[in-house]
Amino acid sequence: MLTQILKNVKENTPLVHCITNYVTVNDCANALLAWGGSPIMADDVNEVEEITTICSSLYINIGTLNERTIASMLKAGKKACELGHPIVLDPVGAGASSMRTKAAFDLLDQVGFTVIRGNISEIKTIASGAGSTKGVDADISDQVTEENLDATVAFAKKLSEKTKSIIVITGAIDIVADHQKSYIIRNGNALMSKITGTGCMLTALIAASAAANPERPLDAAAATVCSMGICGELAYDRIQKEGKGTSSYRTYLIDCLSQITEELFKEGAKIEIK
Amino acid sequence: MLTQILKNVKENTPLVHCITNYVTVNDCANALLAWGGSPIMADDVNEVEEITTICSSLYINIGTLNERTIASMLKAGKKACELGHPIVLDPVGAGASSMRTKAAFDLLDQVGFTVIRGNISEIKTIASGAGSTKGVDADISDQVTEENLDATVAFAKKLSEKTKSIIVITGAIDIVADHQKSYIIRNGNALMSKITGTGCMLTALIAASAAANPERPLDAAAATVCSMGICGELAYDRIQKEGKGTSSYRTYLIDCLSQITEELFKEGAKIEIK
Amino acid sequence: MLTQILKNVKENTPLVHCITNYVTVNDCANALLAWGGSPIMADDVNEVEEITTICSSLYINIGTLNERTIASMLKAGKKACELGHPIVLDPVGAGASSMRTKAAFDLLDQVGFTVIRGNISEIKTIASGAGSTKGVDADISDQVTEENLDATVAFAKKLSEKTKSIIVITGAIDIVADHQKSYIIRNGNALMSKITGTGCMLTALIAASAAANPERPLDAAAATVCSMGICGELAYDRIQKEGKGTSSYRTYLIDCLSQITEELFKEGAKIEIK
Repeated sequence: MLTQILKNVKENTPLVHCITNYVTVNDCANALLAWGGSPIMADDVNEVEEITTICSSLYINIGTLNERTIASMLKAGKKACELGHPIVLDPVGAGASSMRTKAAFDLLDQVGFTVIRGNISEIKTIASGAGSTKGVDADISDQVTEENLDATVAFAKKLSEKTKSIIVITGAIDIVADHQKSYIIRNGNALMSKITGTGCMLTALIAASAAANPERPLDAAAATVCSMGICGELAYDRIQKEGKGTSSYRTYLIDCLSQITEELFKEGAKIEIK
Repeated sequence: MLTQILKNVKENTPLVHCITNYVTVNDCANALLAWGGSPIMADDVNEVEEITTICSSLYINIGTLNERTIASMLKAGKKACELGHPIVLDPVGAGASSMRTKAAFDLLDQVGFTVIRGNISEIKTIASGAGSTKGVDADISDQVTEENLDATVAFAKKLSEKTKSIIVITGAIDIVADHQKSYIIRNGNALMSKITGTGCMLTALIAASAAANPERPLDAAAATVCSMGICGELAYDRIQKEGKGTSSYRTYLIDCLSQITEELFKEGAKIEIK
Repeated sequence: MLTQILKNVKENTPLVHCITNYVTVNDCANALLAWGGSPIMADDVNEVEEITTICSSLYINIGTLNERTIASMLKAGKKACELGHPIVLDPVGAGASSMRTKAAFDLLDQVGFTVIRGNISEIKTIASGAGSTKGVDADISDQVTEENLDATVAFAKKLSEKTKSIIVITGAIDIVADHQKSYIIRNGNALMSKITGTGCMLTALIAASAAANPERPLDAAAATVCSMGICGELAYDRIQKEGKGTSSYRTYLIDCLSQITEELFKEGAKIEIK
C-alpha cells in the first residue's frame, strides 16, 4: 500500500542533505519538515562529505548553481553513492544554458541517481542533450497530454533503463517510471505553476520518502508525487473558499503537506499503473 | 490607458532574467509569477549571457552582491544591451559601502539601464556619489514630501536626462520620471516598509512590465508602481479585517498582485502627471 | 522590568548587520522588522567592515557558511569588537562537520561575543569540541529536561564564565545565563521545531534587543527568548482555531512578533530566575 510510504517518512524522520538553489531553499526546508523529514543544507566542498555521511539521503538541485557548488554536488554525490544513500536529482533549467546542461551530464556520469525529477523539457535534455527549456517551465510543444502519454511513458522507461534511475516527469499529467513499471498520476492544480518551488519541493520530498522506504523507491516517488498533487488540490479549495491569491496558495500547499493523512491520500489519489 | 500595461504582461508572460540578492529572491520570483511574468534566476558568469539571451528583460539588484556576482551583472548587462532588452537596476544600499557604490557606478558606466528604481537616498547616491544610506531605508532627512516634491521631480528629470534611464523614486510619495514627463503616485501603505522585499519585488515587476510594453517604458514603470501601491492598500485592508500582522501582510501583498484587475486599478489609482 | 526591553527596541529601531545562511535569511529579515529592528545583509569581505560600522549590532550565523563567508564573518566580527557593538553568534550545526566546528572555534578565538545561542548539542560543541549534532536539532540524549536542568544551568554559567558571553540554550526549556545569573523560560510550542528558522530568527532578534539595551544584555536576551516563546504559543492558538498547518504557523509566528505588546508579554511570560 502506498499509504505505508507516508507513514514510514513520519516514523523515521529522515535527515536529507540538500544542495539546492537559493530561490526556493526555504520552501524546500519547510516542505521537508511538513512532510516528516528533516533538512540540512550544506554546500561547501570542505564539508559536504561529512554532512552527507550523517544524512539518510542526498538532494541535488542545479538551479542557481555556480562553479563552487558544482564541485560540491559532485563530491557529495560520489560520497553518497559509496554509502548507498538514495540520491535524487532536480535538473532545474537543464537545456537553458550549456553550463547547466554540462553540470547535469557530469552529475549523471559520476553519480548514480536513485530518482531524477524534472519537467518534460528538462528530462528530454537529460535524455538527449538536445532539449529546449524556457525558464523552468516545460515548452508548450513538449507537454505531456493524453495523446502522447503512451509514447512518453515508453520514453521514460527507456531512459530509466539507460540511467538506472527512476524517472519522474511532472506536468498536467505526472509519470513515475522505472524500466518496467510506471505510475500515471492525474492529481494537482494548474495554480502550482504560478508559484515558484513546487518542483523543487517535490524533489526534496522524494529524497525523504526514498530514504524512509529504501526497498521501494518507485513506490516512494509515486506516493510522493501523488501526495503533492492532492495537496495542490486541497490548497486550491482553501484559497477559493477564502478568496485568496497565489502567495496564500503557497502557504496552504505546505500546510496541506503537514496535514495530509492516509485517509486524505486514499480518497484523493488519482493514480494508475501502466 | 495604463490598464493596457497590466493586460500586456498577462498576455505575454515575459521571462525575466534576475540577478538579485538572496534575501528577497523568493519574493521576487513569486511576485513575478503573480504579476503574470516568469522568473529565471542565474548568476554564474559562465551562463548569464546564454540565460539573458532567452529572456525578455534583465533585472539587476545589488543587495548581497559579491565579487563573483558583480562580474556576472556586468556581463549579463552588456549582453542584454546588445540584444536591446529592457534592463532594470535596483541599487539596494548604494551609498552604504564603497563597494556597493562602486558596483552601481560601474554598472551605470557599462550598461544602459531602461529603468533605475530606488529610495531617494539610493537615487541621490546614483546621482552624486555623495548620498548617505541607512540600511535599505531612505534617510529621514531625505524623504520626499509635498514640500520638496517639485524639487525632487526636477532632480529626477535631470538625472533621467543624464543617465538616459527612467528614474523611479519610491517612498511615501512615488515619482516615475523621464527627462520630460513624470508621474506622481500617492498609493501605498506605511506597512510596506515593515516587510522586506517590497522595493526588490517592485523593481522585478517593472522589468516584466517593460518587457511586455517595449514602446512605453515610462507608462509601464508608472502603472507597475501604482499597482504595487494599490496592492499595498488592499493587503492592509485584509490584515486589518483579520487582525493579522506583518508576515500575513507580505502574503496578502503578493496575493493582491495575483488578483489585481483593470477595475481595481482604475478605482484605486492615485496618479497624476507632472 | 523586562517589558522595557521590548519598548527600547521599538523606540530605537536598531540596525542589525546580518551575515547569515541563505535558508532562513528572509525569515530573519522579516522577523527583525516585525520585532522593531531593521536588517541589513552583507557578506562580501570588501564591504563588511563599512556595513558593520553603520550598524548597531552584528549577527553571525554559520548555517550554509563557506570559505568566502567565513573570512567575512571574522573580519566583520573583529571590526564590531573594536567598535564595541553587541555581537551575537548562532553556531548552526556546530559539531556536524569539522569545517563548521572549526569556524565556530575560530570565531570564538578572534571575536568577543555578547551572546551565543544554540541548541544544547551546538552549545556542547562550543564548550568541548566533542558534541554531536544531528542536523540542526538537538540530540535526543542531549535534551534539557527538568531532571538535568540544574546541571545544565551550571554548565551554561561555567561556559559563560569561560567565553565571557551570555549563553542561550533553547529547547523545550530555555536557559539564558551569564556566569552568575540565569533565566529559565518555559514558553514555546513543540511546533516551533516543525518549521525552519525559529532558532535563526530568535538569534537575530537578540542582536536587535542587545543593541537597543546595551546596559542589560542578559535581560535583553531573556526577554527576547521569552517573547519568541509566547509568540510560538499565540501562533499555535491561531492555527488550531483556523485548522491550518505548519506554513501558516510560520506566518503567524512572525505576525505575533509584530503584534506582541507589553500586556501580552506580562500575561504570557513563564520565566524564573535561577
